[in-house]
Amino acid sequence: MDNKKPTLFTCLSPALLHLYDLNNAVVVIIDVFRATSTIAAALYNGAKQIIPVAEVAEAISLSKKIDGIAAGERDGKIAEGLQHGNSPLEYRRDFIENKTLVLTTTNGTKLLHMALNNHANTIITGSFPNLGAVCDFILKENKNVVLGCAGWKDRYNLEDTLFAGAVIHKVQEHFTIHCDSSLTAISMYEQHMHDLHAFAPKLTHYHRLVDRFGLIEDIRFCFTPDVANVLPLYKDGKLVKG
Amino acid sequence: MDNKKPTLFTCLSPALLHLYDLNNAVVVIIDVFRATSTIAAALYNGAKQIIPVAEVAEAISLSKKIDGIAAGERDGKIAEGLQHGNSPLEYRRDFIENKTLVLTTTNGTKLLHMALNNHANTIITGSFPNLGAVCDFILKENKNVVLGCAGWKDRYNLEDTLFAGAVIHKVQEHFTIHCDSSLTAISMYEQHMHDLHAFAPKLTHYHRLVDRFGLIEDIRFCFTPDVANVLPLYKDGKLVKG
Repeated sequence: MDNKKPTLFTCLSPALLHLYDLNNAVVVIIDVFRATSTIAAALYNGAKQIIPVAEVAEAISLSKKIDGIAAGERDGKIAEGLQHGNSPLEYRRDFIENKTLVLTTTNGTKLLHMALNNHANTIITGSFPNLGAVCDFILKENKNVVLGCAGWKDRYNLEDTLFAGAVIHKVQEHFTIHCDSSLTAISMYEQHMHDLHAFAPKLTHYHRLVDRFGLIEDIRFCFTPDVANVLPLYKDGKLVKG
Repeated sequence: MDNKKPTLFTCLSPALLHLYDLNNAVVVIIDVFRATSTIAAALYNGAKQIIPVAEVAEAISLSKKIDGIAAGERDGKIAEGLQHGNSPLEYRRDFIENKTLVLTTTNGTKLLHMALNNHANTIITGSFPNLGAVCDFILKENKNVVLGCAGWKDRYNLEDTLFAGAVIHKVQEHFTIHCDSSLTAISMYEQHMHDLHAFAPKLTHYHRLVDRFGLIEDIRFCFTPDVANVLPLYKDGKLVKG
């Protein structure tokens, strides 16, 4: 093992986050279906900033105060009281350019706040649409990395792990990786890197989104690398283009 | 999905156990390196029973009282104050036959006690040496199943997941499985089912056991299916042949 290389770990569920040292590491928040794909899409299409908040009421009151757009989901659908949800396809340039999005989601924004409470000081968000930008950033920073999977209500999910695997596949030679979660992530990714779209129907969350809400186009977008290749960097309570 | 079939879930870490309904399910405690391999070996070689306890002091005092053998490990080696550890190869027939083993380990016995606290009423232990017996039992019971991976100090490890995958590989058609952890487990197992011994050096726990303590023979035993094919069933505080 080359001890001069920074370490890389994959955390498979928010309930395991406390096991990892986030201090002085780059923490990548991963919620492929769909929060971190939506964040990438909105910033790529010119959103000024995205403010992740924990509660729907907070999203509504804050968006009124700053003339932003309140958005979010609960249990996979637009949260009650909101007009905009967590679909990356909602945030086209003609709607979101130069606006502020105030976003609350079941898993992704929750994990981001947990990372803050666990002393993370460099937080970015990642998903297939901005895979390249995430890899470029962590290579440039040359710090320890924790890939944090948002899962579903603390349960492990495979789409977030597949994205962690995609990152590891691209950057592994620059890190010391001694972590069975990362080994599983890269194995699963390399097994399915050429058939992600065909593999998607095997995922539990696919059924939640497609069978119940017909969101097949969302899934396609969320599994397509580099179609919204920006770097969402958390700074002073906001996600901005890094 | 055939709703008449019982469900099967895989729990990847003790820290996620509270997410699963253990009541009226068969809970399989999995600690491949090495507690549940050692339990299988000892029972297979004629141990009367195995009493899993949480603390070293408890193992010592209880074994004195009942004329049993106190054994256990902490951090991969024989626990301080004990003469016997957590190696399946220690418990040959000429040593263990008709004796009671009082065992305390870092992960496996801890998870068993957590399952009890989470209202599990049918608990068995599993590892490759008793893979067949575990599968036979859960097929016969025809109840919901939770495959509980002991991990390493709440971190995910791949050897326990591989065993969960081996069970799923054998029984999947008899269960409703809608769980990304199980999907990952069977994928990883089917990828490595024919080269488990060659794959072992990639696992973090392999290095803990082999590089530090030279326990290569333990690893070989723990990864060999059906060499100690008994069913350890938890009953009145003890693991006995089921």
